[in-house]
Amino acid sequence: MKNCIYQDTVERWCVFEVTVEGPTDGNPFVDYYIKGVFKGKNEEVEVDGFYDGEGIYKVRFMPSFEGDYSFKIHCNFGDKSYSGNYTVTPASENNHGPVRVANTYHFAYEDGTPYYPIGTTCYVWTHQKPELQEKTLESLKNSAFNKIRFCIFPKHYVYNFNEPQTYPYEGTPCDSSSLTRDNFMDPKIFEGNDWDFKRFNPKHFQLIENRIQDLMDLGIEADIIVMHPYDRWGFSKMSAEEDDLYWKYVIARFAAYRNVWWSLANEYDVVHSKTIEDWQRYASIICEKDPYNHLHSIHNCFSFYDFSRPWITHCSIQRVDLYKTGELVSEWRHRYQKPVVLDEICYEGNIEHGWGNISGQELVRRFWEATCRGGYASHGETYLHPQDILWWSHGGELHGESPERLKFLYKILCDVPGHGLKEYPLSWDSVTGVPESLAYQGDYYLEYYGFSRPSFRTFYFDDTSKYQVDIIDTWNMTITDAGIHQGKFTINLPGREYMAIRIRKIK
Amino acid sequence: MKNCIYQDTVERWCVFEVTVEGPTDGNPFVDYYIKGVFKGKNEEVEVDGFYDGEGIYKVRFMPSFEGDYSFKIHCNFGDKSYSGNYTVTPASENNHGPVRVANTYHFAYEDGTPYYPIGTTCYVWTHQKPELQEKTLESLKNSAFNKIRFCIFPKHYVYNFNEPQTYPYEGTPCDSSSLTRDNFMDPKIFEGNDWDFKRFNPKHFQLIENRIQDLMDLGIEADIIVMHPYDRWGFSKMSAEEDDLYWKYVIARFAAYRNVWWSLANEYDVVHSKTIEDWQRYASIICEKDPYNHLHSIHNCFSFYDFSRPWITHCSIQRVDLYKTGELVSEWRHRYQKPVVLDEICYEGNIEHGWGNISGQELVRRFWEATCRGGYASHGETYLHPQDILWWSHGGELHGESPERLKFLYKILCDVPGHGLKEYPLSWDSVTGVPESLAYQGDYYLEYYGFSRPSFRTFYFDDTSKYQVDIIDTWNMTITDAGIHQGKFTINLPGREYMAIRIRKIK
Repeated sequence: MKNCIYQDTVERWCVFEVTVEGPTDGNPFVDYYIKGVFKGKNEEVEVDGFYDGEGIYKVRFMPSFEGDYSFKIHCNFGDKSYSGNYTVTPASENNHGPVRVANTYHFAYEDGTPYYPIGTTCYVWTHQKPELQEKTLESLKNSAFNKIRFCIFPKHYVYNFNEPQTYPYEGTPCDSSSLTRDNFMDPKIFEGNDWDFKRFNPKHFQLIENRIQDLMDLGIEADIIVMHPYDRWGFSKMSAEEDDLYWKYVIARFAAYRNVWWSLANEYDVVHSKTIEDWQRYASIICEKDPYNHLHSIHNCFSFYDFSRPWITHCSIQRVDLYKTGELVSEWRHRYQKPVVLDEICYEGNIEHGWGNISGQELVRRFWEATCRGGYASHGETYLHPQDILWWSHGGELHGESPERLKFLYKILCDVPGHGLKEYPLSWDSVTGVPESLAYQGDYYLEYYGFSRPSFRTFYFDDTSKYQVDIIDTWNMTITDAGIHQGKFTINLPGREYMAIRIRKIK
Repeated sequence: MKNCIYQDTVERWCVFEVTVEGPTDGNPFVDYYIKGVFKGKNEEVEVDGFYDGEGIYKVRFMPSFEGDYSFKIHCNFGDKSYSGNYTVTPASENNHGPVRVANTYHFAYEDGTPYYPIGTTCYVWTHQKPELQEKTLESLKNSAFNKIRFCIFPKHYVYNFNEPQTYPYEGTPCDSSSLTRDNFMDPKIFEGNDWDFKRFNPKHFQLIENRIQDLMDLGIEADIIVMHPYDRWGFSKMSAEEDDLYWKYVIARFAAYRNVWWSLANEYDVVHSKTIEDWQRYASIICEKDPYNHLHSIHNCFSFYDFSRPWITHCSIQRVDLYKTGELVSEWRHRYQKPVVLDEICYEGNIEHGWGNISGQELVRRFWEATCRGGYASHGETYLHPQDILWWSHGGELHGESPERLKFLYKILCDVPGHGLKEYPLSWDSVTGVPESLAYQGDYYLEYYGFSRPSFRTFYFDDTSKYQVDIIDTWNMTITDAGIHQGKFTINLPGREYMAIRIRKIK
């Protein structure tokens, strides 16, 4: 069995991998195929394998159930088929399976545990030097972030002129030594690329999947951006055939990692070489080739992709209004009837660009506005740095004031009974008072005031029930017991910004 | 001539008044009429007079030109007609005439001097005790406010349960001794009013017109709210005939004051007893009876009156979005092609209501957002007060942080060359950078960053011209000389909120 290696056991929702030795002649990425059928009592799953370089072919599978399983490998080389048996063991304590949509607007892991995304973005952290990647993981470990968006392709953009550690294809890049802020949009600078878009560089993908595994170990979802427009290498301008080869390779490699989400693109609408038909084709490749139905969405620059398309599991939104972000969640929930995730709502920072220079206060406010309407927001950080290491793209250390407050928000969110918040239907009286956002879940109410600074608020639910009231300072991260109340009652507040009141019926 | 008194001279755009003694029998407000024709070389104006109580009838006229004038009074009592001659003298230094619309989106006094409104609101300051009114005038004198909105009728609302100094009609009010926050909306509380809606109380109007004159002396426009819904006396529910009598009386008394603006209503759409036909009828009364074409508009609660109606001179807007106020100016300018005045955009304060508890920073930010789009905003203040004296309604002293910053803004605005700002047409490059608002006028540019905190911004206009650049801290009220620049240049900023850059081409 030397040329077919596999484990005897695998944990439920972990990666089961079959390795087969094979030919290195010709172009193994296109001349040979390998696929597998994985069978247990409750499922039979067929997946494509992939060539991993140096004569190694792999097929990966994520089992969704416990118990006895078998596999059968088919390929057009060597012995043509291989088979074996293995056992799927129960999931360990922190393994809840892949994240799914639950209750129309929210998320849960496959084992039913609610999942409340507190996302961040480090576009090309896996393409930076290893020490920096380790620092990023350390920062993530100490944060509340449980989802991170990042790219498979390297990134060419302001603050992003450095070369990646590896390239996704065999070949040589254009010369970037004369790149400046002034000429980086000039197409002339992109001349001289020499890639073979039919020969992947397995090392590039191995490095990324190691990071996907690291994230999985930290309980963090990997919201993988498969395509993007920030490109000087030509990876955004490949032919349809090359694109499809890329998509299939990516899915074959990454789909068995339970924490993967597919983000078809960042700012799909500025990838000018692609049409809606292209995006729909990529989507159908995912739907065909990913047997696990990972979450998928597509992120916009100027205008949304049509989130009502059935293959889109949730709205992955970049703000389309400079002033309203989380405040629009209700409208989007209503329109799309899917979870609303605000994946880009301006970053905490101080760079020159309007998309990266709000305060920690303003970013945290946007999170609360989204949360109290039953949506989710994402973090990013763009502080000027002497070596141009900006969290938003490179990872590294966090410098801002928002991450601690997002931990606090996450804690509040986890304490909500049931699963996820709904927006409260406002009555005239509430409108007079204009609570900036008011969420509820059963007999739990969360009223957030944002930049409003009421000195008190009066409530009335009924005459007989008793309610535990807490005053939450979302910025100073304190929860103050404001006592048990009945009938009509008034709660005094400090007249500061960013306060909330939490009311819970005592049963 | 004992029973027809008038002055020999009057200053241009000031009030020329003819007083005639007349009968007191019956109901002089409806049984008798008095009107006048005022004639100079350049104009002939016919106006209604009014009964001022105690056998005194008056006709008022505001001359728009200098020189020799005559008048002819007609009435249905006494000698039936009176006439005389008088001279209109040149306007004194601070008298620029009434405010008019200029350049589609802006305002100027009739003598051509630009007028940049920095408005405030003290709804019923003229109905408070005289000492408090004096305090209000003192506060206004030390402020930049050059427009104030206030009501003719008294106000019944939260924080507004006290009785006015006078009532507009003869009669007696309902008993307000048992009024509380809890019952103030209960119609039962309004029972017991006994008014004669055909007999005005001239004292009520005299007090108001004295205040209009005081405001005129301070160079402040009186944006008079003729009707409003905050009512326990029944003044918002009179018959059409009574309404019309009221409108004609108000116009006859106040129209000759050059600083008068007619605001048909505050929150017209919650004056539930009136229909659009009613408002249109009031508008036609103004158009017929006010010979000076004072500015007129009508202010909304939930939805705008149709500002495209030809009688409306400018948009008097209450925000319709909790988050965007000044940011919407461009949209409204484009739609209505009239000056945009945001007369209510949430007040600086700390009361429980969402319309009255933003910070000074947020209010000033909204002013700047409006200003840099070529619109205008208004101030209001609602801080809790031990005696419930809130500037927004009662006047008195200013407690907030915004008024000083609005003085600073006004100074900046007065330094703009030409007349009023235009919004800059944004290019893709500007959009990338997302300047929050960018205004210009000729070779003058004002870029305001609001809650964005860029550490630097780069500019390029042309290769040869020289530009004087200033960094404006709109909150700390400093203007820092950032030097003279040419070609492409970068301006460093402190990475704080509420900064602006001013760029002026050197000629």
